[in-house]
Order: sequence, then C-alpha cells, then structure tokens
Amino acid sequence: MSAILARAPCKITQTSRRGYTTRTTAAVAPPPLAARRSGSALAQRSSFAASKIGSSFVQTTRTHAPMRSSRMCVEASGDWVLMVNDVAGKMGTAVVEAAQAKGIKIAPYCLTGPKRDPITIGDVTVELFDTSFDRDEVMQRIKKEFPKLMVIDYTVPQCVNLNAELYIKHGIPFVMGTTGGDRDKLLADVKDAGLFAVIAPQMGKQVVAFQAAMKIMGDRFPGAFKGYTLKVTESHQSSKVDTSGTAKAIVASFKDMGIEFEESQIELVRDPKEQVERMHVPEEHLLGHAYHTYELTSPDGLVSFKFEHNVCGRSIYAQGTVDAALCLMSKIDSGSEQTLFNMIEVLESGDMR
Amino acid sequence: MSAILARAPCKITQTSRRGYTTRTTAAVAPPPLAARRSGSALAQRSSFAASKIGSSFVQTTRTHAPMRSSRMCVEASGDWVLMVNDVAGKMGTAVVEAAQAKGIKIAPYCLTGPKRDPITIGDVTVELFDTSFDRDEVMQRIKKEFPKLMVIDYTVPQCVNLNAELYIKHGIPFVMGTTGGDRDKLLADVKDAGLFAVIAPQMGKQVVAFQAAMKIMGDRFPGAFKGYTLKVTESHQSSKVDTSGTAKAIVASFKDMGIEFEESQIELVRDPKEQVERMHVPEEHLLGHAYHTYELTSPDGLVSFKFEHNVCGRSIYAQGTVDAALCLMSKIDSGSEQTLFNMIEVLESGDMR
Repeated sequence: MSAILARAPCKITQTSRRGYTTRTTAAVAPPPLAARRSGSALAQRSSFAASKIGSSFVQTTRTHAPMRSSRMCVEASGDWVLMVNDVAGKMGTAVVEAAQAKGIKIAPYCLTGPKRDPITIGDVTVELFDTSFDRDEVMQRIKKEFPKLMVIDYTVPQCVNLNAELYIKHGIPFVMGTTGGDRDKLLADVKDAGLFAVIAPQMGKQVVAFQAAMKIMGDRFPGAFKGYTLKVTESHQSSKVDTSGTAKAIVASFKDMGIEFEESQIELVRDPKEQVERMHVPEEHLLGHAYHTYELTSPDGLVSFKFEHNVCGRSIYAQGTVDAALCLMSKIDSGSEQTLFNMIEVLESGDMR
Repeated sequence: MSAILARAPCKITQTSRRGYTTRTTAAVAPPPLAARRSGSALAQRSSFAASKIGSSFVQTTRTHAPMRSSRMCVEASGDWVLMVNDVAGKMGTAVVEAAQAKGIKIAPYCLTGPKRDPITIGDVTVELFDTSFDRDEVMQRIKKEFPKLMVIDYTVPQCVNLNAELYIKHGIPFVMGTTGGDRDKLLADVKDAGLFAVIAPQMGKQVVAFQAAMKIMGDRFPGAFKGYTLKVTESHQSSKVDTSGTAKAIVASFKDMGIEFEESQIELVRDPKEQVERMHVPEEHLLGHAYHTYELTSPDGLVSFKFEHNVCGRSIYAQGTVDAALCLMSKIDSGSEQTLFNMIEVLESGDMR
C-alpha cells in the first residue's frame, strides 16, 4: 500500500531516540495557510497560543491486561473529531468517507507533504498544512480548537516514528494505519508515553479475524493437519513485488498445525490476464486487490479444505480503521486502563456501529 | 452415519439410571462361540472367571481442568489392545484398518448384534459375540485376557447408553464414536464413574478443528462480520434427510460474528446429478460424503470469504477415532487427572503419530 499512500513526505529530522527537531523550508515559518482563508476557524485566532497538552489522553499508571468482549465500542464518537493525515492520499480519502458514513466529525485540517490546495470530501473542506509549517505550532492550535482530537495516520513508512512522536508530544491519541518504520520503537514510544493508540499493520478487520483464528488453531491444535499438503496462491496488483504478509502469517499457523510448507512455495499471481481469468479478479480492481486461497488436502486425497479471502479496493481497510478509532474513543471515554491496542483487541471489543 | 453403522442392535434392557439387567435370547447362555473354535484364546479357558474390574482406569478423585498442549499423545499404544464394537460395521472395519496402519493391536473379539461368522481384517480374525451371549461374562473374560483393553464403540444410537454402562461396569476405557442416545446421561454416567473416555459426535479431527476455530472467532470477535451476507451449501448422500449438524454449529458461530442468518437458509444438496456437476463430488462417493461451503460477502460486495470442507468416505473419522484412542491411552498411562475428553481436548493434546 505504501505506493498509494506516499503523500506526506516529512521533513522532520530525528536527532535522538526521544527528542527531535523540526526543519522547516524557511528560517521563519510563514503565516499559516489558514490565516489567508476567510471563514477558517484558525484564521479567527490572533496568535499561535499553545494549547494545554492533552494530558487527559495520557495514562501515567496503567496495566495492559486485555479487555475482552467489553462491548464498549458502540456509539462512541460523541464530540470527538478526527484529523486524517493526510486526506490527499487515497487511503486518507477513503477513511474520511467511511468516517462520515458513520457520522463522525472530521477536522477541517490535516498535515501533508508538498503544498496543496484544500480538498473537499463530502461536507468537509480540509486545509492541508504542508512541510513549510512548524508542525508543533500547527498541532497545538488544532488541538486547542478541538480538545477531543484523534489522529488517523496514513502517510509513508519513513514518517511513522516521527509522526508518532509528534502525536505523543501533543497528547493526541491516534490510529496508525501506516506500515513500515521502526515498529519496535513505535510500540515502545507509545507504550512508554501511556498515550491511547491503535497500532496495526493490517486494518482489514475481517481478514485480521480470520488470521487470528488460524493462529489460534495452530496454537491450540498442534499437528491437527499433519500429513496434509498445502497449496497457497495470492494475487495482488502487479506493482506489488513481495509476498503477501498475511499469506506468510497464515502459512506459519498451518505449519504449527503440522503441515510441511515453505514460504517460498506460496504462488504469487501478478499477471493481469491470469488474475482475471484464473483468480476471477474484476478488471476494475486489477490495480488494487488482495486475493488469497489456501487449499489443504489429506494424504489419501479424500478430505480437502479450502479457505479464500478476497479483497477489492480500500473500503475494508478504511472501515476497519474507523472502527479502530471508534473503539479507541470508547476506551478513552470509559477510562480504560489499557492504552495501547492492536486490531485483535479492537475486534475483541465487539461490534462498532 | 447411523444407517451405515446399524450393525449391533443390543438386547440389554435398562431398568434404572444406574443399574441394568441383561436379557439373553436363551434362559441359559449357550457355550461361547469362542469355545467352538480351535486356537481361540478364550477357548483355552475352562471357566468364565470374573476378572478384577479394571479399577486402574477409574479415577476416584480428579479435577477436570483442561490440559492444553500437553503433547502427551505421541507413541502411546504400548501394550494396549483395542476392541472395536463392532467390526461388522463399515466404520468398525475402517477403524480397525486405521489402527493397524498405526501399529495398534486389535483384540480378536468384539460384541455384535445378530450372530455372525468371524471376520478377518488385515492380520486379525475377530470373533463376534452376538446378543445370545451374556455380555457381562464376555467382557469379564476379554478383560482378563487383555488387562489393558480399550473399546471403540461404533454401534447404533439405541445402544449408546447401555454400552457405556457396560464399559463403566467393567472399568474399560472407551471412545464413543456412535452418535445419538441420551447424551446428557452418557456424559454424566461416565463423569460420575471417573472412567477414562473420549466422547464426541464428530470424530473428523480436522473438521472439529475448523469448527472450533469458527467458534473461537464468534466468541472472541463478536460482530466482526456485521452486515455481511452468508450463503451456506451442504451436500451429503441422498439418504441423509436432516441438515448437517456441523453446518448448523458453524452457522451459530457466524451469527455470533454479527451475521443475520437462519438455519433454514442452509441449502441442502441431495440430488446426485447436482452433487456431481455443481458440488464436484466424485461419483464413487455419492453414497458417503460430506461437503460444506460457506460464503461471506461484505455489504458493498468488495470483500468475500469462502470456506470449504469436503470429506469423502470414512477415513477421516476412522483416523480421528484412532487418534482419540491413542490420546486416551497416553492420558491413562501418564496418570492424567482429567478422565473425560471431547475431540477438541484430543486436538489440544497435540499430534498423535
């Protein structure tokens, strides 16, 4: 997905594991874009008053016990406002649309890479703050205008850690949908800060559920499929060079179930003609799909299992991301002791809305 | 499966919840069939000496804590001997073959319904004790000859409870593969007696694993598939009138995942022509197969999941039954505190051999 999401290259230079400095394109930050637009809420303010860092979203003491089936994520958004970084990307746009469909308010601002004109999606026009702005000041002002602000991050791998540090600094809970970056550092930073966040490399809720079920089968029923043969086929847009991470994770679970199989045996289908004729991918989704088939056959050939999960477009990821945000809002509002969640924990919290 | 297994109608009359009387076809039991065959081990005995009831297989104090992933079921059979009731049935024959393939000794005797000649399967000739024999005396004698005796029961639903009482009375651990009967009473009787047993309506280990995984998904991820549509199709031999119990159980799990669906919406395919052409059932398995397909589609039609489990013949059930027996042997030999197991617990014990 990274090619699709490469919209907001950041210019923040990391200087240490904890601290960082911002590097702007001018020695002095120019007047904010917002100040030049009439009707902008930000333009009505006379100064960049630093907002109180949102300490209410930071737990200083907590435990990380899983909160299974708490069913706390229903009807959660209330007066929360979502800032989507950034709406110039296809995933960002899809997330805004999915959030609007669920009645969640969208902030009229976001961070972005190169300078861009405002973008209108549904009933919101979003002003994009490019890398020429001082991001600390921007975040402070937006946070002051929307005290219950939550960020959804779909940017680029090289911004993952720096963006997370920005959100931590300003106490803004977030859902990290961007893949890549230093994941160990990301998790450690957020956990250490006690900031509420959902961090997951795969936001497709139903795919995560299936993947988790296979993991559970592997953990609980070791050797249950011993002797079976496995055939795995995955098809993605031809620009995707590497093997599906989901396929690799599920193969690992099948190996726990006793099947002898190597990741290199996964068949990658990248030829559009074959994708349409053999995998039955709709032509309009040749540029964005994720099809997976797993076939297991008993040694005597009399028993077979077949599992397929076929995704076209971005809607499953956008909806899963919004569900993660709703879950996080609910966790914060209900005073959850656990602050950091993955997608399995979001799923365990029950249906969203 | 009951039609296939209807081989050993019993003539034991139940008189109370705990006690029972045997009813034989003659006022005095005739000389055992074994006594009329030279070379029979039983024929070498001069009297029906009552063996000590196998108290070593009965736990008087125990807990029923699950023993997950104990990996204790490997290479378990040792000096155990399996008595299969009864080998005149197709499932009985399949179980003997599966057990022999794993090097497990088969007792040269079994109980049966109507009088039959001995049956040879592989390297064992099995003498069948029909309902004209006093079953208590038969069991005592066999138990004396093979102190480490275990029974596998594939008889008929109306014998389930009475056979279990017989095994309990003689302290013979057993695997109950026969479906039907009073299941609550069966479980209560065996649990109260503290006898080692595996009781499961579905012995297809891999199907049980998949069914359990769907159950776990439903329990852990409520509402994960909310809004999705479900289509369920199952094909069985045309003699099967009712809906697949496995399909119903899995539908219940999908409902827990948020899908609206009624059991009555399950499509039953019973027409042989349709089974071959649409479901791709091999013609030679039209009389014995179990095909299941579950298709889930997202509201926008962009995401689909498909799960299939297709079984031909009896081998999966026979192998699962033998694995259950091996697991039970291992549990007994290792002094397990838990005595009563279902197929999920067998699976959790790890791979067999």
